[in-house]
Amino acid sequence: MAGGGQVSATSLNEESYARAALTYLAEPGDLRLGALVRAHGAAQTLAAIKSGQFPGATPAGLFDTPEPAEDRTSIGTAPSAAARAMQRWQVRLAELPSADEVAGCCRAGIRLACPGDPEWPAQLADLGDAQPYALWLRGSADLRFSCLRSVAIVGSRAATAYGSYVASEFAASVAARGWAVISGGAYGVDAAAHRGALAADGVTVAVLACGVNVPYPVGHTELLDAIAAQGVVVSEWPPDRTATRLRFLVRNRVIAALAPGTLVVEAGQRSGALNSARHARDLNRRLMAVPGPITSDLSAGCHHIVREWQGTLVTSAAEVIECLSPVAPEPAQAPPASGRARPAVLGREELDLETAAVLDALPSRGGMSSIRIARKAGLDPATVVRCLGALAAGGFAERCAQGWRLRRT
Amino acid sequence: MAGGGQVSATSLNEESYARAALTYLAEPGDLRLGALVRAHGAAQTLAAIKSGQFPGATPAGLFDTPEPAEDRTSIGTAPSAAARAMQRWQVRLAELPSADEVAGCCRAGIRLACPGDPEWPAQLADLGDAQPYALWLRGSADLRFSCLRSVAIVGSRAATAYGSYVASEFAASVAARGWAVISGGAYGVDAAAHRGALAADGVTVAVLACGVNVPYPVGHTELLDAIAAQGVVVSEWPPDRTATRLRFLVRNRVIAALAPGTLVVEAGQRSGALNSARHARDLNRRLMAVPGPITSDLSAGCHHIVREWQGTLVTSAAEVIECLSPVAPEPAQAPPASGRARPAVLGREELDLETAAVLDALPSRGGMSSIRIARKAGLDPATVVRCLGALAAGGFAERCAQGWRLRRT
Repeated sequence: MAGGGQVSATSLNEESYARAALTYLAEPGDLRLGALVRAHGAAQTLAAIKSGQFPGATPAGLFDTPEPAEDRTSIGTAPSAAARAMQRWQVRLAELPSADEVAGCCRAGIRLACPGDPEWPAQLADLGDAQPYALWLRGSADLRFSCLRSVAIVGSRAATAYGSYVASEFAASVAARGWAVISGGAYGVDAAAHRGALAADGVTVAVLACGVNVPYPVGHTELLDAIAAQGVVVSEWPPDRTATRLRFLVRNRVIAALAPGTLVVEAGQRSGALNSARHARDLNRRLMAVPGPITSDLSAGCHHIVREWQGTLVTSAAEVIECLSPVAPEPAQAPPASGRARPAVLGREELDLETAAVLDALPSRGGMSSIRIARKAGLDPATVVRCLGALAAGGFAERCAQGWRLRRT
Repeated sequence: MAGGGQVSATSLNEESYARAALTYLAEPGDLRLGALVRAHGAAQTLAAIKSGQFPGATPAGLFDTPEPAEDRTSIGTAPSAAARAMQRWQVRLAELPSADEVAGCCRAGIRLACPGDPEWPAQLADLGDAQPYALWLRGSADLRFSCLRSVAIVGSRAATAYGSYVASEFAASVAARGWAVISGGAYGVDAAAHRGALAADGVTVAVLACGVNVPYPVGHTELLDAIAAQGVVVSEWPPDRTATRLRFLVRNRVIAALAPGTLVVEAGQRSGALNSARHARDLNRRLMAVPGPITSDLSAGCHHIVREWQGTLVTSAAEVIECLSPVAPEPAQAPPASGRARPAVLGREELDLETAAVLDALPSRGGMSSIRIARKAGLDPATVVRCLGALAAGGFAERCAQGWRLRRT
């Protein structure tokens, strides 16, 4: 079952706890730490930080590749880059929560997803050693499933009325067609995109630069709660951690990596949205931009994307989906199934009781929102959304404009 | 000298008169007539129309290629396509002006340019058999020289304030850098483009779908006169001929063919400007479009050009020139000349008196408008513009932001 393993805090294994611990100790995107975790695993890496000894060898023997140039030219007794990294990671050891404390977070409606967990989005591996150590999640939607058919909609915080309108309209349109909308939870374009998806009863994912329980910006407290209720709030930073300027930039690579494509609605020439767009391009994701008046500074970044970065100019939600569809096919293009609800992977008898209850609640025509399905099946919405993910993956259910239904022949 | 041969009406030779006559008898773009003129010359073709006998042979022997399908399937005694074409051309024979009458037009400030004349833009040959039989001109600028470094700026008649502003600004900017602005003399984007070029003391070319002496639209009477005073008004139709809906479409191919590139500023999805753009694309000219709000129907055509026709999105006049420069290099990229004014083709002693007078009037730094040069040299502006064309071609003079000056080392 999707989302099964990482929800229960009591089941936190040593490796998951170590990954959670690393989100407390180090800033995300630390390539040295990512390389260590890749080579030795999180638990060994955490033990090494605690002991101050690099796993298996002296600090000098840690890296197979030569030290970067600035290290080789360092003079005298200045510490090596590896030693400095160790100091950097150790500086927060005093704040490290215990496994019980991490479990306490999870009991408070927050869950942890680690590489290999059912809810972990495998596409984050494209970030290489910069991939998140773990993700903290708050909300009802299954992150991995939500991102399969999703688009990141990003843009300026100081969006014009035009930008807000376009972001909201596009988000509502793609959400109504079953695409999740990923954004950063900020003012302006981000907020309009989230709200558009919510208004269409769609799934939306907010990737924050602070803890998933931190109401930032304060004016978005209710919006973030609404996103959690209908979608999911995501962060690489542990609960209670606050946002900083640099963290927004670090966070942008995750937005770009999660979605098959990124759409920039409005962005000045130096906007953070252009930073997201560059990540999307570098990750070989689809890159799209909405044009605007050339007299608007906030459209200059969009035009730059089209002119210089070979981004696709899009003027409607349909064009967004057309651009993404080769990447993430629409249900109509999925392999044909015969019969009313032919499973592709699992037999109906293999479903657990909750998932079977959700399957029974699904309409065969039209569509039903996850909230109504929850009422009908007598289950909580979070469970329903995770069951729906499994049912969709198993070929039993499909998303449609009105919500969810049995998969058609 | 550029423009020398075709100005003097009395020098109209038989072939030029025949080409002028064809503009009276046939609509432009008649591929059958174009093929006849190509094969037999205009004079023979005119004689054939007068006699009702195709040159050299029976009507059936006229075409090397088989008759089009609709002709072969015609039944009974229906006339062949060739015979119908002959009837079509003969129907206006009664209105045909004499050589004296054509010469009278020319004395009235109108001149005729035919293929091979110094002022004929050779690039019109790209139109094949659809190339104009001849062009009627009114104005001071040399058409061929003006088009060498030019951009067609076209768009909707019902332009928004945004479209008019952009057209005018871009036109003024490129004109100030010595690029001629070609457009169609219509309301909206066309008018804004012409006015922008005029305001920058630049050269602008209006290609009309009616006679060059016809004030159409009536509201543009003064604008067309201003274009003639500072640029040139062009038509494939003879003087006094009025515009029709179809003629605008036929005319569009000439706008596209004259300029190295066409810029669409605002255009609805069914705009005539898209027709011009399609011609530009088919003629392998550079195709550019200005983006706008996706909420504006008048930007939809521009976005279509970028999305579907691989047009270049441009947001400034500098980007327009950058896009065109590989086609028509800026003076700075011309082969270097040594000395203050080294001729590339002619020696100074080979210049006629008028051209030498213009050369003497040119400043060595800054720049001077053609009107001021005319005053200084004591010549009429039309003569000055044509002399400037020869001086530029000869490597003596160059255009700059302020007008004309001696070519620098």
